Amino acid sequence: MAERLSAEALRQALGGLPDWSEVQGRDAIGKTFIFKDFNEAFGFMTRAALAAEKMDHHPEWRNVYKTVEVVLSTHDAGGVTALDIALAKMMNAIAG
Amino acid sequence: MAERLSAEALRQALGGLPDWSEVQGRDAIGKTFIFKDFNEAFGFMTRAALAAEKMDHHPEWRNVYKTVEVVLSTHDAGGVTALDIALAKMMNAIAG
Repeated sequence: MAERLSAEALRQALGGLPDWSEVQGRDAIGKTFIFKDFNEAFGFMTRAALAAEKMDHHPEWRNVYKTVEVVLSTHDAGGVTALDIALAKMMNAIAG
Repeated sequence: MAERLSAEALRQALGGLPDWSEVQGRDAIGKTFIFKDFNEAFGFMTRAALAAEKMDHHPEWRNVYKTVEVVLSTHDAGGVTALDIALAKMMNAIAG
């Protein structure tokens, strides 16, 4: 099972993840993606959903038209693990 | 442009929409859909996204694994309109 990252490991990982940050009041990381329109936003979600399903690690996310707010955390580990960092990197790559 | 429904028209419409209700503190209607797993939940979202795009009327929604929380409102009208009722019916039909 993926282990929760130490505070130092999390800081380092976030250094390599543009626009991701710790979510206040949660043991989680988050990012708000803003696209051109719903077509682009849901296109991103669809690609990310396929990647997440393949990793068997899923996001919490909220979509309002062209905006997608993502929160990542590993429930079983009670915090942020390497799985979340991997999914965050994948999402950044998909958003381009 | 779609006009905001009267309180009476909204009550009647909700009577024909299983499990949808007014959202507390918002001029909106909402429903939480619970599926078997992420595959089913995102499958529902994908079908609903295509329907929404075709209607040019989009939901606010939040997905966590097998759960999809939907909130519908018509921003331009400042409340719930016939567009929201139509999208809610479509979502119920898709969820089956």
